[in-house]
Amino acid sequence: MNFEEIIREVYLKNQPVEEKGQLPAYIPELRYVDPAKFGVCVSTLQKETYGIGDYQERFSIQSIAKVLSLSLAYSMLGGNIWNRVGVEPSGTSFNSLIQLELEHGIPRNPFINAGALVICDILLTHLTHPKEEFLDYVRSLSNNPDLTYSDRIAASEKQAGYRNVALCNLIKSFDNIMNDPVDVLDFYFNLCSLEMSCEELSRTFLYLANDGYTLHDDKQILTKSQTKRTNALMQTCGFYDESGEFAFKVGLPGKSGVGGGIVAIHPLQYSIAVWSPCLNEKGNSYKGMLFLEEFTTRSELSIF
Amino acid sequence: MNFEEIIREVYLKNQPVEEKGQLPAYIPELRYVDPAKFGVCVSTLQKETYGIGDYQERFSIQSIAKVLSLSLAYSMLGGNIWNRVGVEPSGTSFNSLIQLELEHGIPRNPFINAGALVICDILLTHLTHPKEEFLDYVRSLSNNPDLTYSDRIAASEKQAGYRNVALCNLIKSFDNIMNDPVDVLDFYFNLCSLEMSCEELSRTFLYLANDGYTLHDDKQILTKSQTKRTNALMQTCGFYDESGEFAFKVGLPGKSGVGGGIVAIHPLQYSIAVWSPCLNEKGNSYKGMLFLEEFTTRSELSIF
Amino acid sequence: MNFEEIIREVYLKNQPVEEKGQLPAYIPELRYVDPAKFGVCVSTLQKETYGIGDYQERFSIQSIAKVLSLSLAYSMLGGNIWNRVGVEPSGTSFNSLIQLELEHGIPRNPFINAGALVICDILLTHLTHPKEEFLDYVRSLSNNPDLTYSDRIAASEKQAGYRNVALCNLIKSFDNIMNDPVDVLDFYFNLCSLEMSCEELSRTFLYLANDGYTLHDDKQILTKSQTKRTNALMQTCGFYDESGEFAFKVGLPGKSGVGGGIVAIHPLQYSIAVWSPCLNEKGNSYKGMLFLEEFTTRSELSIF
Amino acid sequence: MNFEEIIREVYLKNQPVEEKGQLPAYIPELRYVDPAKFGVCVSTLQKETYGIGDYQERFSIQSIAKVLSLSLAYSMLGGNIWNRVGVEPSGTSFNSLIQLELEHGIPRNPFINAGALVICDILLTHLTHPKEEFLDYVRSLSNNPDLTYSDRIAASEKQAGYRNVALCNLIKSFDNIMNDPVDVLDFYFNLCSLEMSCEELSRTFLYLANDGYTLHDDKQILTKSQTKRTNALMQTCGFYDESGEFAFKVGLPGKSGVGGGIVAIHPLQYSIAVWSPCLNEKGNSYKGMLFLEEFTTRSELSIF
Repeated sequence: MNFEEIIREVYLKNQPVEEKGQLPAYIPELRYVDPAKFGVCVSTLQKETYGIGDYQERFSIQSIAKVLSLSLAYSMLGGNIWNRVGVEPSGTSFNSLIQLELEHGIPRNPFINAGALVICDILLTHLTHPKEEFLDYVRSLSNNPDLTYSDRIAASEKQAGYRNVALCNLIKSFDNIMNDPVDVLDFYFNLCSLEMSCEELSRTFLYLANDGYTLHDDKQILTKSQTKRTNALMQTCGFYDESGEFAFKVGLPGKSGVGGGIVAIHPLQYSIAVWSPCLNEKGNSYKGMLFLEEFTTRSELSIF
Repeated sequence: MNFEEIIREVYLKNQPVEEKGQLPAYIPELRYVDPAKFGVCVSTLQKETYGIGDYQERFSIQSIAKVLSLSLAYSMLGGNIWNRVGVEPSGTSFNSLIQLELEHGIPRNPFINAGALVICDILLTHLTHPKEEFLDYVRSLSNNPDLTYSDRIAASEKQAGYRNVALCNLIKSFDNIMNDPVDVLDFYFNLCSLEMSCEELSRTFLYLANDGYTLHDDKQILTKSQTKRTNALMQTCGFYDESGEFAFKVGLPGKSGVGGGIVAIHPLQYSIAVWSPCLNEKGNSYKGMLFLEEFTTRSELSIF
Repeated sequence: MNFEEIIREVYLKNQPVEEKGQLPAYIPELRYVDPAKFGVCVSTLQKETYGIGDYQERFSIQSIAKVLSLSLAYSMLGGNIWNRVGVEPSGTSFNSLIQLELEHGIPRNPFINAGALVICDILLTHLTHPKEEFLDYVRSLSNNPDLTYSDRIAASEKQAGYRNVALCNLIKSFDNIMNDPVDVLDFYFNLCSLEMSCEELSRTFLYLANDGYTLHDDKQILTKSQTKRTNALMQTCGFYDESGEFAFKVGLPGKSGVGGGIVAIHPLQYSIAVWSPCLNEKGNSYKGMLFLEEFTTRSELSIF
Repeated sequence: MNFEEIIREVYLKNQPVEEKGQLPAYIPELRYVDPAKFGVCVSTLQKETYGIGDYQERFSIQSIAKVLSLSLAYSMLGGNIWNRVGVEPSGTSFNSLIQLELEHGIPRNPFINAGALVICDILLTHLTHPKEEFLDYVRSLSNNPDLTYSDRIAASEKQAGYRNVALCNLIKSFDNIMNDPVDVLDFYFNLCSLEMSCEELSRTFLYLANDGYTLHDDKQILTKSQTKRTNALMQTCGFYDESGEFAFKVGLPGKSGVGGGIVAIHPLQYSIAVWSPCLNEKGNSYKGMLFLEEFTTRSELSIF
C-alpha cells in the first residue's frame, strides 16, 4: 500500500472519530474556527504532494512559526544563539514561568513560549525591518509570495496575552531580553498570527527533510548539521510536556500550534502537515495526534 | 571513509583530550576504576563488529540496565506498564524527588531512577525468581552465559543509596510500589551492578536496531512497535536532564550509566557502546559524549 | 466574664457543631479513636487549672512532641542546632520533600517532619539512652512519672511511615543525618507515640508561658531568650501551611498534632490544650481550631 | 534602664558596626542614597517619642506602604479581601512567580509584591481618585498633611520594574486583577514611592499598637480584631523569606521596605521605626535587623 492510500484510509477512519478535544479558550479569535475542519497534506522529496480534506484552507499556524523564526536566527547567528536559550525539554507546560525563574531567565528551549520570545528578541536586534524580513523569509521558504500575518489574530492575542507579557518581562528582569518587551511581544504576536494551509505548511517545511535545502529552488537555509539539530529539537521539545508522548507514539520530529496544526518531518523522506482545531489537554491537536500515530504505525516509517 | 576508519580516527583524536569529567563520588566502589579507561565497540546488522581501546574489559553498566529491565517488563505486560510510569522527559536530574511528589508517585519515565524502581517492582511481582530470571534474560540477549552481577558493586550501592531508598519509599507512600521497598531496592541494586564490556553491550543491544529481534538467533524480544517506542524513549529520556543535548549533538537514541558507559542505537544499522569512566556534571560520560558527537558528525549517520 | 466561663461557653457552643474534619487515614491506629471526643484544659501561671469535656483522657500527642524534643536539644546544644535546621515557615505541607531537595537537606524548621527528624538525630548523638532519657525529660516537665510511649501507635506509624522513611533517607543523602536512618526513625516514631491528656499537656507546656521555668518546681528548662524564640517558632511554624491562618485567627503561638491535639501558649499568662480527633484538610484539628479562634476572640487575649 | 537609654545604647553600639549589607541594585534611584544613614524613632501609647540619628530625614518607605494599603482595603471591604489574597507565609522571596503559578494567581499574603498588587487592584476598583484618596488616608493616619509621593522614585521603579510587570500580568492571566495591569502598576509604584522619616513612620503606625485607633485624634482605623490580624500577618509575613528569622530574633510584628526602613509594633506599648539603607541578602535592612534584635533582647519586651 502506498502513501496516498494510507493517508486516505487513516483520514477517513479518523474523520468520524468523536471529538474529545476543545477549541483553545484563551485567544478569542481562535474560538470562532469551525471545529469540524480536518485536513492533511504530505509533500515528499520526490516532489509529490498528496492532500485530503481541508488541506488547502489556511489557518493560524501559531507556534509552528517558532521553527521558522528559529531557523532564521540559527542561520544568521549560528550556535551563538544557544548562549541565550537551551536545548532541553522543559518537562512543563508551554507557558510556565516556574522553570524560567529557577533557571534565571534562560528558557529551556526555543519552542516553549519563553524561548520563542528570546529568539524574537534576537531577530529584533539583527533585522532592520523585522516583521517584513521575517515574512519575506517565510514566503521564500514556501515559494509563495502571498503568505501574510493576520492582523485580526495578532490583535486578539495581544489583547489576551497576559501570560506572554508576564513571561517576556520576567526574562527581561533577568537581562535576557535586549529590546523593549512591548516590541518583542508585538513581533511575537505577529509571527504567531501567520496563516497557512496544510499544503503550504508541508511544502514550506521540506527543507528540514532535505538536509537544509529548499526543494523548489535548492537554496541552503540551514547547514546539514543545523538541520539535524533542529529536527532533534523538534523531536525532544516540539510538543511541550507531550513531547515524549509524541516521540513515543508518532516517532517523528514535529511541532504543533494551538491553531490545531501539526507539522512532522521524516528526514530524507517527506514533510507532513495535519490540521484539526480542537486541542487535547496538553494543547496539541486531538485528532492531529491520532492521525499521525496511526499514519506512522501503518506506514512503518518512523525514524526509530 | 568507512565505519572502522571513522571510529579509529575519532577514538585516537579523543583519547588524549584532557579529562574534564570526574569519577562518580556516591558509589564508593566506582571510585576505584582507572579513569583512563576508554573503549568503543560498534556492532552492525551485517554482523560486523569493530572495537578499539578497552572494548573488551567489563565495567559496571549501571543505568544502562534500565533499558533491559524495561524490555523484559514491556514484553511481559505490554502497554499496561504505562499506567504506572510515564513516557515524558523529566527535565530534572536523575534522582529528583520533586516531580515525583508533585505528580503523586507516577515517575516521568522508566529511565530515571524512580521509574526504574517501578519497573523493578513490576518484575518482582511477575517473576518467580527475579534476580535469576533477569540474569537469564540478559544472558540470552547477549548470547553470553557468563554475564553476572557484581556483589561488590551491589553492596557498595546499597550501603550509600540513601537517595534511592528515599525515592522508593516516596513512591510506596503513593501506593505505586506493590512489594516491600527493601526487596525492590535489593533487586534494583543488583540489576545496576551488572558488568559488561563495550563489545558485549553493543551486541546485546542489537535487538533494538533490528526491529526487536536478536541478531544471533533471530528471537523476538519486542514487537516492532515496542522496539520503536523503546528507542523513542531512549531518545527523549535516556540522558536525564541532558537528553535534549544528546539528541541535539549526537542524534541517536541512547542510554548512559554512571559507570561511564553509553549505548546508542541507529535503527536498522548498528548499535554502539562507549566507555570512559569520568562523568560530566549531568552524570554522563564526559569523553563518551565527545566521542559520540564527533562520530555521528563524521559518519553523518544520525537519525535526523 | 472570667476564663472559666468563656471556656465553658465556647466549649458548649462548639460541641454540637457539625464535624467537617476527618480522622487521619495514614496512621492505622488513629482511625480507631472515637471522633466525638472533645476536651479542653487551661493552666495559668496562677496555678489555676480549668478543664472541660474529655480533658483527662489521654490521646496520641504526635507532632506536639516536636516542641519537647526541640526544647531538650536546644537546652543541651544552644544555638548550634540552627546550623542543621532553619527557623522559617515552610509554606508547604508537613511532609513535603520538595523544599528539602531544593535546600540541600536543611529542613526549614524543627516542626515539620524533616526538621523533627534532624532534632531526633541530634538527640540520638548526644543522649546515651535516647528513648529513656527523653521520656524522663517529659515526665519531669509534666511532674507526672507515669507518662509513656504507646508501643501500639509507634508500631502502627512505623508500618505505614513510608513518607517519613523517604524524608529521613533524603536528609541522610545530604549528610544532615549522622546516625542510621533506621534508628532515627525508630526514635521519631516513639516520640510521636507519647500519650497525654489535655490536662497533662497544658501543665507540661507551662514552662513556655513562664519564661522557661517549670511552674511546679521552678526548674529552668530554657533560658528566657530560648523560650521567646521557641514561642516565636511555634507562632510562625507550628501549624504547617496553616501557620499563618492560626496566627491570623487565634493569635497565639501553638503546635498541633495529627492525633487531634493543639497546645497554645499565652506568654506570661497561660497554656491551653484542646483535643478533638477529626482533622481539617491541612492536618490540624477541625474543632480545635474553631474553639481556639473563638476563645481568643472572646477573651481578647491574643498576643497581638 | 529605660527605653530612651536602651535605644541610645544600642544605636551607638551598632552605628560603627561594619556594614555588610548592600544598597538595592534594581531601583536605580535608591542607589544614590547615602549608605551611612542610620536613624531610629520610637513612639509610645503614652505619647512619648524618642528619636536618634537620622530619624527626621525622609526616605522611600517602599513595601512598608503595603501595610497602609492593606489597612485601607481591609477597613473598606472587611474579610472579603481574603477571597483574593491569602494569609500564609510564602516561604519564598518577595517577588517570586513560582508559587503564584502553582496556586493559580492567588498570592500567599498581602505583603509580598503579588499580594500588594491585588490590594492595589481592589483599591483601584473601590476608590474614585485612588492616588489622592490613598495619600489623604496616609496623611490622616500620620497627622501630617505634607506627606507625599516621590515622582522621581516612582518613575525609577516603573522604568526598572519588569519583575513587577511580570507578576501583575501573571495574576491578570488568572483573572485575579480586575483593572488594566498598567493602571495597577502605576498605582503600586506611586504607593511604594511614599517618603517618610522614622519619626513620621513610628507615629503613623501607632494605630496598630492602639487596638486600631489613631493616638492623635482617637479615630478608628481598624476594628480591634482587624488590628490583631494585621499584626499577626506582619509577624508571619512581614519580612518575606526572613519572616521566621525576624519573629525568632526580634519577636515583634513588623514590616520592612527595600528603602532600608523597618517598622515594628509592640501591641499596647509602642511603635518603632529604624532606617539604614543597606540590605541583607533577603532584602531587609542589615543594620535595622541588628538594631531591633538587640533592642528587644535588651528591653526584654518582645510579644513572646
